Amino acid sequence: MTSIDFLIGKIKQTRNPSAVGLDPRLDIVPDALKAGFFKEFGNTPRAAAEIFLRYNIELIDALFDAVPCVKPQIAMYEQYGWEGVRAYMETVRYAKSKGLAVIGDVKRGDVGSTAEAYADGHIGETEINGEKLRVFDEDFITINPYLGTDATEPFLRNCAAYGKGVFVLVKTSNPGSGQIQDILAGGEPLYRIVGRLAAEWGKDMIGCRGYSSVCAVVGATHPEQAAVLRDMLPHTFFLVPGYGAQGGGAKDVKFCFDKNGGGAVVNSSRGIIAAWKSEKYAKRFRPEEFALAAREAALDMREELNRI
Amino acid sequence: MTSIDFLIGKIKQTRNPSAVGLDPRLDIVPDALKAGFFKEFGNTPRAAAEIFLRYNIELIDALFDAVPCVKPQIAMYEQYGWEGVRAYMETVRYAKSKGLAVIGDVKRGDVGSTAEAYADGHIGETEINGEKLRVFDEDFITINPYLGTDATEPFLRNCAAYGKGVFVLVKTSNPGSGQIQDILAGGEPLYRIVGRLAAEWGKDMIGCRGYSSVCAVVGATHPEQAAVLRDMLPHTFFLVPGYGAQGGGAKDVKFCFDKNGGGAVVNSSRGIIAAWKSEKYAKRFRPEEFALAAREAALDMREELNRI
Repeated sequence: MTSIDFLIGKIKQTRNPSAVGLDPRLDIVPDALKAGFFKEFGNTPRAAAEIFLRYNIELIDALFDAVPCVKPQIAMYEQYGWEGVRAYMETVRYAKSKGLAVIGDVKRGDVGSTAEAYADGHIGETEINGEKLRVFDEDFITINPYLGTDATEPFLRNCAAYGKGVFVLVKTSNPGSGQIQDILAGGEPLYRIVGRLAAEWGKDMIGCRGYSSVCAVVGATHPEQAAVLRDMLPHTFFLVPGYGAQGGGAKDVKFCFDKNGGGAVVNSSRGIIAAWKSEKYAKRFRPEEFALAAREAALDMREELNRI
Repeated sequence: MTSIDFLIGKIKQTRNPSAVGLDPRLDIVPDALKAGFFKEFGNTPRAAAEIFLRYNIELIDALFDAVPCVKPQIAMYEQYGWEGVRAYMETVRYAKSKGLAVIGDVKRGDVGSTAEAYADGHIGETEINGEKLRVFDEDFITINPYLGTDATEPFLRNCAAYGKGVFVLVKTSNPGSGQIQDILAGGEPLYRIVGRLAAEWGKDMIGCRGYSSVCAVVGATHPEQAAVLRDMLPHTFFLVPGYGAQGGGAKDVKFCFDKNGGGAVVNSSRGIIAAWKSEKYAKRFRPEEFALAAREAALDMREELNRI
């Protein structure tokens, strides 16, 4: 089964069109969990990596039957170097072992053989002395379109060959995204041109549920643009970041869904994984119950999304 | 000293405005060097990582007094997972220990706190339990501008705070770069708008040699656009990929230099690091002399560049 059909099936099964952003930071992890690792490994990247992995495993154990997918953000791991990247890879592997779809938020993009290396490492196979190995093996990754179609081809090839998927950055959730993405070219903003390109790239990879393996990132913080894109791109599945902490609410994301309530998955990171620290949940959960608080927040988010 | 002043000083000292792209692939490493590692570690990412590191160390030892800087491309390492990233980090560290400037070709770009994580990990400091640590610590990295100014700010902040530099993707060297980058917006192609943005981002970080810490990637394969950008951006230093294997020649890159022959560094990857396999050098060097062949190719390239 392709990644896109798998993800849509998981959304139906859990009745939950949301992704949990596994974007750990040391300041959202309870002190009691961190102390032992700092004691064992010192204030080192190794300690941070072990803390993140433990935190993620507890989160995944609490969430795997309530949400369809997780979206680890590799920057949060990469900032601790190779030990962080190892924790990222082990997080991906553990999430997959629990039946979750995994969107690797890596935003890679490069030219020629370099793009091939990213595509092979993340959503294909890397060859080592005649043996082929799946290295990161996310179900989906996010990619940056600025370098054009030829730079995107290695990713598209691997989507077709391995049944994987990509989310092309079309309209990002940051306040300043419009500076480049809204530039008018022939009367049309750039993000729409990129949106159409994504649809074109994915037109021969439409799965049995009507959506292509080539998907789009469309920020929750831009509801009007989202509505235009939803109409324009009937076979393009959306990943919608910016829900919760970044300011997007349930009413803002509704424009990302199709008329049957499908076609999109909404990401929340801190709102779920740091729920135990938020006003809403802090009274009901102790720090060591961070995973239970996350589950509660994920179920509340599901209800909010199902209401609209 | 800031990275940009350091790099320009190194270029003058070596009389060589070129960067060596440390983009290893297993098929450019001589069998004799690989065999021992495959025997010890099997056909594993560990073996690939150890091979790359050994290859790079020999290259750096042969090149460090002939070239001003190296540009490792992280994708080539990342495709082997965390063990590859470790080899990348050790390559950066070794190159710096030999006095080379290091441009980390990572092409990162993301929003808000995620961009901060990339910026802190690569060209700043990552905090772990109150201690601050330099993790990747390249002198420069390449960044993708598609997300806009607010997404770029964490990188710019670290340029100012740590004396580091960034190369903003303005006009990439791939044949299809024009699809997005040449789109006309108000009669002007997007890459020029991005070029001006880069100049604006860097206007308060101009070093003692007249160039800013905020630099630009301008492909050797587009000489006409390069000439326009060179005129437009008098304080923006260029990294020029696409020389050699990608089709750009010495006459194409000359437009990237200012009237004093400064303002740019030209990258060659395979042309240098795989010289021992090329027609031109294969007759004179045995496979185990790959580092000597690379040195010879680097000196030949210096001569070509100094001629124009």
